[in-house]
Amino acid sequence: MVSIYTTFMPKSNYRTRKIYLDYASGALKIAANPGAIHSLGVAEKDKLNKARARIARLIGARPDEIIFTSGATEANNLAILGLPRGHVVTTNIEHASVMETAKHQAAVTYVPVQPNGIIDPKKVRNALRPNTVLVSVIYANNEIGTIQPIKEIAKEIRHYNKMYPYPTSPYRRGRIKGGIIFHTDAVQATNYLELNVEKLGVDLMTFNAAKIYGHHGIGVLYKKRNVRLSSLFFGGNQEFGLRPGTENVAAAQNLARTLKQADKIKKQEVKRLTKLRDYFINKLEHSQIFKNTRMILNGDKERRLPNNVNITIPGIPGDLLVIELSAQGVMVGSKSACKEGEAGASQVIKAINPLAQDTDGSVRFSLGRETTKADIDRTLQTLFQILKKLKIWYN
Amino acid sequence: MVSIYTTFMPKSNYRTRKIYLDYASGALKIAANPGAIHSLGVAEKDKLNKARARIARLIGARPDEIIFTSGATEANNLAILGLPRGHVVTTNIEHASVMETAKHQAAVTYVPVQPNGIIDPKKVRNALRPNTVLVSVIYANNEIGTIQPIKEIAKEIRHYNKMYPYPTSPYRRGRIKGGIIFHTDAVQATNYLELNVEKLGVDLMTFNAAKIYGHHGIGVLYKKRNVRLSSLFFGGNQEFGLRPGTENVAAAQNLARTLKQADKIKKQEVKRLTKLRDYFINKLEHSQIFKNTRMILNGDKERRLPNNVNITIPGIPGDLLVIELSAQGVMVGSKSACKEGEAGASQVIKAINPLAQDTDGSVRFSLGRETTKADIDRTLQTLFQILKKLKIWYN
Repeated sequence: MVSIYTTFMPKSNYRTRKIYLDYASGALKIAANPGAIHSLGVAEKDKLNKARARIARLIGARPDEIIFTSGATEANNLAILGLPRGHVVTTNIEHASVMETAKHQAAVTYVPVQPNGIIDPKKVRNALRPNTVLVSVIYANNEIGTIQPIKEIAKEIRHYNKMYPYPTSPYRRGRIKGGIIFHTDAVQATNYLELNVEKLGVDLMTFNAAKIYGHHGIGVLYKKRNVRLSSLFFGGNQEFGLRPGTENVAAAQNLARTLKQADKIKKQEVKRLTKLRDYFINKLEHSQIFKNTRMILNGDKERRLPNNVNITIPGIPGDLLVIELSAQGVMVGSKSACKEGEAGASQVIKAINPLAQDTDGSVRFSLGRETTKADIDRTLQTLFQILKKLKIWYN
Repeated sequence: MVSIYTTFMPKSNYRTRKIYLDYASGALKIAANPGAIHSLGVAEKDKLNKARARIARLIGARPDEIIFTSGATEANNLAILGLPRGHVVTTNIEHASVMETAKHQAAVTYVPVQPNGIIDPKKVRNALRPNTVLVSVIYANNEIGTIQPIKEIAKEIRHYNKMYPYPTSPYRRGRIKGGIIFHTDAVQATNYLELNVEKLGVDLMTFNAAKIYGHHGIGVLYKKRNVRLSSLFFGGNQEFGLRPGTENVAAAQNLARTLKQADKIKKQEVKRLTKLRDYFINKLEHSQIFKNTRMILNGDKERRLPNNVNITIPGIPGDLLVIELSAQGVMVGSKSACKEGEAGASQVIKAINPLAQDTDGSVRFSLGRETTKADIDRTLQTLFQILKKLKIWYN
């Protein structure tokens, strides 16, 4: 006898409800361990792989080229330390997670940036050596927002790899098949710039969710198939053996979603923010307050992120301005948050201006989806008020 | 003139609303970068430190002894590889993140477990050498749930450290002040066992949020103040220089909350689950179906986690049982999810029973907060039905 209520039976009906007795592998059945072979585990693995495939599609890669990590710092570390030991070429305007990590490779050359905050591809070319394993150049700088000529650098490396196709050093023999590997840290670029890895010509690329309006605690290292890396730590086969530890499926899904959204609105946001940025810069440059006080716009005026305005007002410490602005409700950055708390001018500012004094701090205004013209106007007004007050003490 | 409406002014009033121009350090102002020095950054740092202090209090530690990591795997790696190079003593029933990682230290001794799944403290004592830097013993095993005598092992190590107070090996000279360091992986124990680090006598302890009904992507390494570790990767001063990368504040808060909750209901859950577990074991042991088929309860019957039942039915592969049970809506585990996909019996099962065949897979039933007696009854019924079916093919 079939009950007429059958079709109305709630899903939580006891006899059909799933019994979860795998709390030891993951305490929430809504987030079972993707490594488990029961159906809830398989469903999680499926979600993870779908997120992986979506992300791959958005950057022109294949799913098995997407390695989830705990964030961009770990992804940059994996890119640098996961390669065999050898010489690394990078720049003097990298994020600390590249700058510091490169020192733990066999040898490193820091290519100096030009005064406009942009790296000359020829200089990268000239730094290559027979035992170079990696070139790592930040796509858009995190402090001054300057955009690096990634495609041109990739071309130089390809030429070099063609000219010297055979390993010429014991470091490389039998280890790096494709020649010198090219990595870019695209964390600041993700919202605004071209991300197709084929078009860019990169072998490795780092990005994360937190900088594109997503969760903390998840990042990606894109790894071209032919690049061989070894993992930084041990104890599981996850992420193709490159990143042990139970996968964070919810965060991976969030990253896929936010990357899709960033891609969708990229064009219009670039247009809108470029206008706002240029309005901001123009107002700064033509302000009465800078008649007697010098103001420096750090980094190239055109080849910079649409959301970045970074200035130095010589003689006034950046941290002081950040705190004064914060007290008036305006939240801006000084140097990289990862290096905040350290004294003196930022390394990036010193890199573009070797004469910069420790007191010549920079202030970074980085705009985003919620930023309006009214925000910029109030920010300018607040900044000018503060400068008037500070000018009595400084200068 | 003061408007009478002032007190009713909404918080989103434009002139008092905060302007966020720090998108480059973190795209969501609700989750500003805790490294930023503006007021939103400071507020995030404050939340992080409060979570840290709450967690510290719950395990009898100090806030600066709590190191947030991306999870337990990373915490175990940091405990082992963050120490100076030397000899490591561990067991043959560790989670892969200890078992595999120990191989990357200078030397390692795996103390064999007794047939009941419990480590003899005397055997740990006998494995210590002058150049031993670390002993790492899992608090409660992840597969068979056996509880290790952590306090007794800590006592043995303390005795040894007292007997040999001076560094006797080049590995230790001037590096490890307090002698041999004792680490425990408490991931499976967190919900049910004593976590006070003073009472346990441990120097390092790993746990995470995912196994206590919290978020994925966050773990803790408790690190006693006098223990000196170096970080596994580079590029930021976060977590006392031991774990670079922007902090995951929301996840840290979630871990603090879930740990508090676990602590609150620990006593009653231990009581409730012990009863359920023993009911489950009793039913298995007295079942008709095991009149002619052998069933082995893996691990000590008493000294095991209140939520763990792990059995072997010789001749029937564990993975097969897991999949058959899953098809009937019952989700259980076989070997550790981090090692699933690998063929053969689990290392833990082989450790307690060297005669175990590859086909003698184990099945782990791990109970949790939602598990009821009705769940156990249906699970038993389902299991017996499956065994009846399988017995035609196996045995």
